[in-house]
Amino acid sequence: MPEEQQSASREVAGSAWPRYSAATTGFRNYWYPVMFSRRLGRKPVAIKLCGEPIVLVRHAGRAYALHDRCPHRGVPLSQGEQAFPGFLTCAYHGWTYDLATGDLAAVLTDGPDSPICGKAAVRVGTYPVAERAGLVWVYVGDQPAPPVEADVPSELLQPGLVVEGVFQVRKGNWRYAAENGIDEGHAKYLHRNALWAFWRKQSALTLFHMAPSEDGEWLMRVRDDTIWDVTYPRLGRWPRRHPWQRRRSGTSGVGIRLPCTLLNRQKGWTGYELYVPWDEDHYLSGLLATKRASGLEALKFRLWYRLWVRWVFHGQQNGEDQWMIELMRIPPERLYRPDVSITAWRRLCEETARRTEAEAASGAHCAGAARLAAGQQAQ
Amino acid sequence: MPEEQQSASREVAGSAWPRYSAATTGFRNYWYPVMFSRRLGRKPVAIKLCGEPIVLVRHAGRAYALHDRCPHRGVPLSQGEQAFPGFLTCAYHGWTYDLATGDLAAVLTDGPDSPICGKAAVRVGTYPVAERAGLVWVYVGDQPAPPVEADVPSELLQPGLVVEGVFQVRKGNWRYAAENGIDEGHAKYLHRNALWAFWRKQSALTLFHMAPSEDGEWLMRVRDDTIWDVTYPRLGRWPRRHPWQRRRSGTSGVGIRLPCTLLNRQKGWTGYELYVPWDEDHYLSGLLATKRASGLEALKFRLWYRLWVRWVFHGQQNGEDQWMIELMRIPPERLYRPDVSITAWRRLCEETARRTEAEAASGAHCAGAARLAAGQQAQ
Amino acid sequence: MPEEQQSASREVAGSAWPRYSAATTGFRNYWYPVMFSRRLGRKPVAIKLCGEPIVLVRHAGRAYALHDRCPHRGVPLSQGEQAFPGFLTCAYHGWTYDLATGDLAAVLTDGPDSPICGKAAVRVGTYPVAERAGLVWVYVGDQPAPPVEADVPSELLQPGLVVEGVFQVRKGNWRYAAENGIDEGHAKYLHRNALWAFWRKQSALTLFHMAPSEDGEWLMRVRDDTIWDVTYPRLGRWPRRHPWQRRRSGTSGVGIRLPCTLLNRQKGWTGYELYVPWDEDHYLSGLLATKRASGLEALKFRLWYRLWVRWVFHGQQNGEDQWMIELMRIPPERLYRPDVSITAWRRLCEETARRTEAEAASGAHCAGAARLAAGQQAQ
Repeated sequence: MPEEQQSASREVAGSAWPRYSAATTGFRNYWYPVMFSRRLGRKPVAIKLCGEPIVLVRHAGRAYALHDRCPHRGVPLSQGEQAFPGFLTCAYHGWTYDLATGDLAAVLTDGPDSPICGKAAVRVGTYPVAERAGLVWVYVGDQPAPPVEADVPSELLQPGLVVEGVFQVRKGNWRYAAENGIDEGHAKYLHRNALWAFWRKQSALTLFHMAPSEDGEWLMRVRDDTIWDVTYPRLGRWPRRHPWQRRRSGTSGVGIRLPCTLLNRQKGWTGYELYVPWDEDHYLSGLLATKRASGLEALKFRLWYRLWVRWVFHGQQNGEDQWMIELMRIPPERLYRPDVSITAWRRLCEETARRTEAEAASGAHCAGAARLAAGQQAQ
Repeated sequence: MPEEQQSASREVAGSAWPRYSAATTGFRNYWYPVMFSRRLGRKPVAIKLCGEPIVLVRHAGRAYALHDRCPHRGVPLSQGEQAFPGFLTCAYHGWTYDLATGDLAAVLTDGPDSPICGKAAVRVGTYPVAERAGLVWVYVGDQPAPPVEADVPSELLQPGLVVEGVFQVRKGNWRYAAENGIDEGHAKYLHRNALWAFWRKQSALTLFHMAPSEDGEWLMRVRDDTIWDVTYPRLGRWPRRHPWQRRRSGTSGVGIRLPCTLLNRQKGWTGYELYVPWDEDHYLSGLLATKRASGLEALKFRLWYRLWVRWVFHGQQNGEDQWMIELMRIPPERLYRPDVSITAWRRLCEETARRTEAEAASGAHCAGAARLAAGQQAQ
Repeated sequence: MPEEQQSASREVAGSAWPRYSAATTGFRNYWYPVMFSRRLGRKPVAIKLCGEPIVLVRHAGRAYALHDRCPHRGVPLSQGEQAFPGFLTCAYHGWTYDLATGDLAAVLTDGPDSPICGKAAVRVGTYPVAERAGLVWVYVGDQPAPPVEADVPSELLQPGLVVEGVFQVRKGNWRYAAENGIDEGHAKYLHRNALWAFWRKQSALTLFHMAPSEDGEWLMRVRDDTIWDVTYPRLGRWPRRHPWQRRRSGTSGVGIRLPCTLLNRQKGWTGYELYVPWDEDHYLSGLLATKRASGLEALKFRLWYRLWVRWVFHGQQNGEDQWMIELMRIPPERLYRPDVSITAWRRLCEETARRTEAEAASGAHCAGAARLAAGQQAQ
C-alpha cells in the first residue's frame, strides 16, 4: 500500500475516525474476555466492561454476570454473597437475585410475602456469559448476542490448547494500548534494550504493509523487506550492535481484530494481547501464551511460560509499553510511514465495528458518508 | 401505618423531599454536638460544621467558637494560639481576635495605634457555644439561637449521667448515615455475623411502624410483632442459627430527632448516634453510651464501655455500617416496606426542620404546597 | 509614602490589579533561572516554566531547552536521551531532534529517506537559554528575547561571585510566595521562634516605606524607624524576650524586582529568593546565598552555607513561610499598613511588566485606563 504509506503522515486522528474517536469505552455488541475461568468461583468478582460495573460469579459450574448495583440503595452486589446457591444476596438488606434472570427472588428482611419481589423495576440486568479457551467471555451491547465463537479467535477454539497468561487492570485508554500493540515502529527503538533483545541482532527497518489474513480473521502486518543497517546523515549508523548478537528469525506474524485482540505468532507458540475496555481511563490488559500440546510437552510449555515468558515478554517489554501508554497525550498527533499499521486498524474499526441501536437508527450505516462528513470537519 | 408501608416502594428520593434533598450540608439553625468537653483546652481545635470552618478554643473554663479564617490573608485561625489568654492570634501576622466578640483587638505587627483594629470589616464571626452532658454544642444559623436545651435530648440533661463515647470524622453525607441509623431492615442482614450476635438467636423479621414518642421528642420505631422463622420459596429457611444461640430481649427502643440524633435504648443503658454534618462528603460520627450512675456503678459502666461496647458496638458493627455508607449510590433508589423508617424520617425533616431566613422570605412555609409541587416534578 | 500606608487597608486584590491577577502562571517575556548549571548534563531534565513543559539538556558545554512534547504521539522528550550527541531522541519511536533548532533530523525507525524529516509541522519549539552566576536561565515569551543581563540582578553578574543555594518545586502560586517574601509584617510574628531568632532581641515594629533603589533595579523596603517595645491595650507588652537576647543589627536591605526575584542583603553576604512560576498551583523556589570571595574565604563561605544557612534560613524559616503559602486563601483579603510592601510590588508588576503580543495588540498599554476600568468593576 504505497499510497497508504504516503498519506499516513497527513492523517489527523479524531476528525477522520468519528466512530473510533467516540469509542472511548470500547465498541459495544461484542464478547470480551475478562478473566481466567479457573479464577472464578462462588465468591463474586467485580469488574468493569465498557464502563459498566459487572459482577461475575459461578454456580454449579456455570458463570453468571449481573449489573453490579442493587436497585434498592445502590450498593454493589459484588459486596454480597451466594447466601443461597444460585442466588446473589446484597450485603446491605439481603435483597436476593436469581443469577440466571436477575429477578428479585426474595428479600431476606421483608418476609416471603414481600410485595416488591419479582417486580420489573427491581430486576437487575444480566449479561450473556460464555467460557472458551479457559477464559470467561462477557457480552455487552444492545443487540442480540451472536454466538461467542464470532468473537473468539478461531485458533483459541482448538481442542488441546494450553493457555497461560495474566490479566491486569492498567491506566490508559484501551485504544492507546491497542495502537501500541499493532504499531510496528516502536519495537525497534523502545524495546532495543529489552532482555530478550540481548542476544538478538536487530534489523534497522522492516518494510511492511497491512493486509487481511487469508481467512479474513485478522488484519496482518505483512513484511515486505528487512534492512539490517542504515546510515543517517549527520548522525551515523544505526542500530548499534554487540559482537555476540546474531540474526534470528523473529516474529512470524502480527495481526489485530475487533473488538480488541492482538495476535503475535511466535516460533512454536502463539501470543495474544487483549486490550479490554474497562472505563475511559483504564483497560484490562490480558496477555496470553498458547500452544497445542499435551502431557509432558504441555507441562514443559507451562513451565517455560511461568519461568521465562511471564517475566521477559509479559513483564519487562510490557512495562516499557505501559510507560508509553501512560505518557501519550493525543490528539494532536503527527503520523509517519510506519503508522499505516495504526491507520489501517482505525479504518477497520471505523468501517466494520458492530453498530449500536442508536447508530443504526440514526442511519449512520454508510461508512463512506460518515468519513466524507468527518473529512469536511477536519482541520 | 399500612398505607405508608404500601407506598414506600413507590417513593422517589429527591423530588418528593425538596428541603431534605437540598440539605447537603445539614439543616441550619440548630445546635450540634461536636466534641467532648474534656478534649477542649487552650489549644485551638479546627472543625467543620454544616460546611463552615470553625475554630474552637477554651479560655477560663469557657468554650468559644470563631469562624476559622483570618480576614487578612485567609489563613485558618486554628493554626494560631492564645498568645494572650482570651484572645486568638493568627499565626501569620499576629492579628489578634477577642474570643468573646470576634473583634480585632490588636495587630502585634502594627502597633497599638493600628487603625484597622476594631473595624467591622475585619471582625471574625462567632458562634454560640454551650456545654451540656460533657459535650460541646455549637449553633450554626441565621436565626437567633434558641436555648441549647431545645436541641439536646432531654435525657442527656439529667444530673448524674455518665457519658462515654467517641467522635470521628468519616466519609459520606450525613443523611446516608442518618438513614442507615434509623433503617430497621439492614440490621438483621448486614450485622448477622457481628460479634454481639454470636450468642443471640436472631428473629427473621420485625414488624413495626413509626410513631412519635409520648413526649413528642422522638420519632420512634414501634415494634408490632416479631417473627422468628420464615421459609422463602425456592430458597429455604432463614435466618440460619447455631445451636448455642438463645432468644434475648433486644433493643427496647430506637428513635430519631432533628437535627441528626439517633436514640438507641438498651437494657440498663442508653446509646446515641450523632450524624453531624461536616461538609457535603463527610460527617462527624458521634457514638455515645450513657447511664445514670455514680460511684462504683459509674466506674463499672465506664470500664464496661471501654472494654466491650467501644469495640463491639462502636467498632465492628459500626464498621459494617460505614462500609455501606461509603458504597451507597443514590438516587436512584427503590424502597421497600421496612423503608418506612426512612421515609418517615425524611417527612419529619421536610415538615419540621427550622427554616433559614431565605426559606422564610421565599414563602416556602407551606410544606403541603412544596410537596405537591415536588410531586408534579417527580418522574 | 504615608498616603500609600493609609490606603493599603482599603485595597481589594484582584480587581485593582488586572494584569497581576491574570498572571497566574507568571509574566511572560522574561528570563527565568531554573536550576544550577552544575546539575545539568547529558541526561534530559524536565521542568515547567510559566505552565509550559520544557526539557533541558547539555551538549558540548552548552545548555539547550526544547518544548517537552514529541509531536508524533505526545510523549515527553525528557523521557528520551541523546542517542547521538547534539540530538534528542524520543524514547518511543526514535524521532530525533536537533537540539539547536528543534528540527526533526532523523527518525530511527523510518530510515534515512523518511519524508517527514525537516518538515515544519514536526519541528519542536526551542527556548533561548543562557548561563550566568552558575545558573541556567530560560526565556519564555512571544517577543524577541532581550539580553539575559536585562533580567539577571546586576550583582549576580560580578566576577568572582560564590553562589550557593537550593531549588525545590513547591505547592502554591508564585505570587503568594513573592508576596510573602516582600511582606515585612509576618517576619516578627511568624518567625518569632525561629532558630536564628534565639539569641537575637527582636524589635516590636519596623516603620518603613517602599522606594526604588538608587540604580532603579529594585523596589526596596526602606526602614524609617525601629520601635523596640510596645504595650497593647488589654493585652500587655510585646514582644516577649529572653534575658540572653541582645540587639543586633538585622537585615540591611530587602528588595524585589521582576520577574520574581527577592534581594535580601545581609551583613557580609547577599541572599536571593526566586519564586519561579511552574504552573498555576506550584512554584519553583530558588534560595541563593552569594558572596564575592576567592580561595580560602570562598571555601569558608561555602562551608558556612552548607552547615548553617542551608538548614536555619533556607530550612526552618522557609518551612514556616511555606506553611502559610499553602494555607492562604485569597481573595478576599483585608490589607493593613505593613502591606504597602505588597501593594507596591503589585503596582510595580501592573505598570512595568513586559507585555505579551496579545496585550500589546489589544491596546492595553495604558495602565491608567486599565486601573480605572478595573476600579469600576471592583465591589
